[in-house]
Amino acid sequence: MTQHTSRHYEQELQALKEKILLLGGKVEEMIASAMKSLLNRDPDLARRVIASDREVDAAELDSDHLCLSLLALRQPAASDLRFIATALKIVTDLERIGDLAVNIAERSIELNEEPPLKPYIDIPRMATAASSMVGRALDAFVRRDPVLAREVLGSDSAVDQLNVQLFRELLTYMIEEPRNVTRALRITFIAKYLERIADHATNIAQMVIFMCEGRDVRHPAAQEGEAEEF
Amino acid sequence: MTQHTSRHYEQELQALKEKILLLGGKVEEMIASAMKSLLNRDPDLARRVIASDREVDAAELDSDHLCLSLLALRQPAASDLRFIATALKIVTDLERIGDLAVNIAERSIELNEEPPLKPYIDIPRMATAASSMVGRALDAFVRRDPVLAREVLGSDSAVDQLNVQLFRELLTYMIEEPRNVTRALRITFIAKYLERIADHATNIAQMVIFMCEGRDVRHPAAQEGEAEEF
Repeated sequence: MTQHTSRHYEQELQALKEKILLLGGKVEEMIASAMKSLLNRDPDLARRVIASDREVDAAELDSDHLCLSLLALRQPAASDLRFIATALKIVTDLERIGDLAVNIAERSIELNEEPPLKPYIDIPRMATAASSMVGRALDAFVRRDPVLAREVLGSDSAVDQLNVQLFRELLTYMIEEPRNVTRALRITFIAKYLERIADHATNIAQMVIFMCEGRDVRHPAAQEGEAEEF
Repeated sequence: MTQHTSRHYEQELQALKEKILLLGGKVEEMIASAMKSLLNRDPDLARRVIASDREVDAAELDSDHLCLSLLALRQPAASDLRFIATALKIVTDLERIGDLAVNIAERSIELNEEPPLKPYIDIPRMATAASSMVGRALDAFVRRDPVLAREVLGSDSAVDQLNVQLFRELLTYMIEEPRNVTRALRITFIAKYLERIADHATNIAQMVIFMCEGRDVRHPAAQEGEAEEF
């Protein structure tokens, strides 16, 4: 590789990182706005979240194109190859996080059409935790930092616990009073979406650790003698 | 590329296709067994589904390793590059379909501990439809067949409709009788898992069309002037 092409290559890798951080920032913003639309009973904001899904979709395409172009034209070596392969997988997770923020916004619009069931306490906590996991997982990715990625893995159980706790509470509402069922179900769904956002962040963090260490924390049990090291 | 390496390369590509079809067959079998455990009230079968998740995880790793090795050592040209990049994305969807089959098996064990709420009619239909979508999406992938992939896209709305229909029915059960709530919720979750399996199959089919045609059906609106053609 000439010095000139090598500089280009570094610039393209840098551009890939920036695209992914930008996409991550976009979906974090969507989660925050979907949550705000729920708490402030603001259906207009929810509709803006739904509309902004287009930008996420465009960014995913854009990032995939850059990855393919890097793979085809630059023939990257081992560690960059892993980085680009991981980028291909990560943007799919980010796009689906965007879809989940849209789903939250949809339920927020529906909930806004009825009187509030109860004050939201755990849901905003779950949203903050899940969103922070997404941001940290992506930081770990661009910095190739397995220590930060492992921290993200440690946060997942807090979100799961909040979800279980909220589910039990909403179940009580549903059993006590049939008129609560529809609203309680919609809130249950929002909690489920947030749990899935945290799961996507966990998946990203696991892929980052695999990328950095070649060891698979996605499926530790599956590894014994199964897949040869690359 | 010498004739010798070229033959090796073809063999490796063939091995990748076979690995992915095998993984697909495995997750289809898990969906079928999870469903059988629900219908026949067979918790042992459900536990076997849960245990078999390890094999799916190992197969995902194995396929990822082969993709990275093909990218690193074979420097594949445009159309094979797309094929391998798509394989990297697809196995993630397959692994998550395996997780969803595990979730169905978990709910099946819980439902088996209580008397049946109602005969299952729509759930097995959804399972058959979703599982067939997975199989056809993977066939479309290995054959690089966008026509078959488009057929898969057409099947998604049938699964969504069954889910909506079942959700309304279960809502009635919950509102009529508080004792039904827990069981009806678990069945709702199973329907949701099946809908998500169909969504994963849809994602796979969309990626196959993109792979074959370079056009993105994932996000048609997002494409206008956004991402340059690769």
